Amino acid sequence: MQLLEDRIRRDGKIAPGDVLRVDSFINHQMDIQLMSRLAEEFRRRFADTPVDKVLTIEASGIAIAALVAQQFGVPLVFAKKSKTSNIPDTVYSCPVRSYTHGNVNTILVSRDYLHAGERVLLIDDFLAHGEALRGLIDVVEQAGGTVVGAGILVEKAYQPGGADIRARGVRVESLARVASMDADAGTVEFIPD
Amino acid sequence: MQLLEDRIRRDGKIAPGDVLRVDSFINHQMDIQLMSRLAEEFRRRFADTPVDKVLTIEASGIAIAALVAQQFGVPLVFAKKSKTSNIPDTVYSCPVRSYTHGNVNTILVSRDYLHAGERVLLIDDFLAHGEALRGLIDVVEQAGGTVVGAGILVEKAYQPGGADIRARGVRVESLARVASMDADAGTVEFIPD
Repeated sequence: MQLLEDRIRRDGKIAPGDVLRVDSFINHQMDIQLMSRLAEEFRRRFADTPVDKVLTIEASGIAIAALVAQQFGVPLVFAKKSKTSNIPDTVYSCPVRSYTHGNVNTILVSRDYLHAGERVLLIDDFLAHGEALRGLIDVVEQAGGTVVGAGILVEKAYQPGGADIRARGVRVESLARVASMDADAGTVEFIPD
Repeated sequence: MQLLEDRIRRDGKIAPGDVLRVDSFINHQMDIQLMSRLAEEFRRRFADTPVDKVLTIEASGIAIAALVAQQFGVPLVFAKKSKTSNIPDTVYSCPVRSYTHGNVNTILVSRDYLHAGERVLLIDDFLAHGEALRGLIDVVEQAGGTVVGAGILVEKAYQPGGADIRARGVRVESLARVASMDADAGTVEFIPD
């Protein structure tokens, strides 16, 4: 999507460790007018898809997921990363490795909020190794629901997550697919839509 | 606000440890149509207030804060609870005790996203002891910005946070102010608007 690619070219920063920083407009400060446009684009791309629920994972996916849920007029559920005192014991869970944080979290979704037969659209800000998305698919399948697709803002297409998840038969729509980054030149190349 | 009070009476659960669980519609599964109405209510209540930015704290405040930022047409910033590899070293920070989780987190906001002179509206889902809100006020003041108000979904008005923060001169608008809860009867009483 040209709008997002242009914004990444303008305001994205390539940081050490192959990190594409978009925290001025996506995942720390959020340009909500941009995000609203991106949510509308997901609505357009998944217009032929019945969606009962949007599922994301805390924390930086929540804002775009809320705007997508608003577009579809359906509830949003977010998977939590740690057990708190006010989560019931009856949860679906899956271990998820974070390459960014260098640790493994267990993601948790209450059994009250995912059900057999539900058609679930997954939303997240980033897709690289695909660990978070695999965890979300896993909890939906534990519940007996169906993943109708995954909407991603930025996919690092040179990492294996997107290909792995598409090979499982999940429709993945990424609004910007990074083909390569040049840290020295500060340039980002995208796979055309 | 009647709409939210009615929903809490219907779907809220009183859990051991004086916990009011609203995770079926506010902070695990989110009723985005309800949340959109609540975001409009904040827009109405703060209509006379110039707002440059909305600030919240991860994770469960992000959805309502995104919808409020959309109402005002301004950026959203969320304070993070732990240092990750892609946050710059130059942050405003403040220790914040969580009574729910029984620990102390440092909240972090990049110096790039809070500035002197900015008029900041704080948004969060819950206000009880007021620790999170005090942390957010602290980082705005470190940046030289002005807190123009705080919008809260559910305030436990019998705990000290709301009174403390109002006594500091901060305008706090809570859409539901819980006066008391009776765990045995399963009833919640509210302070009238």
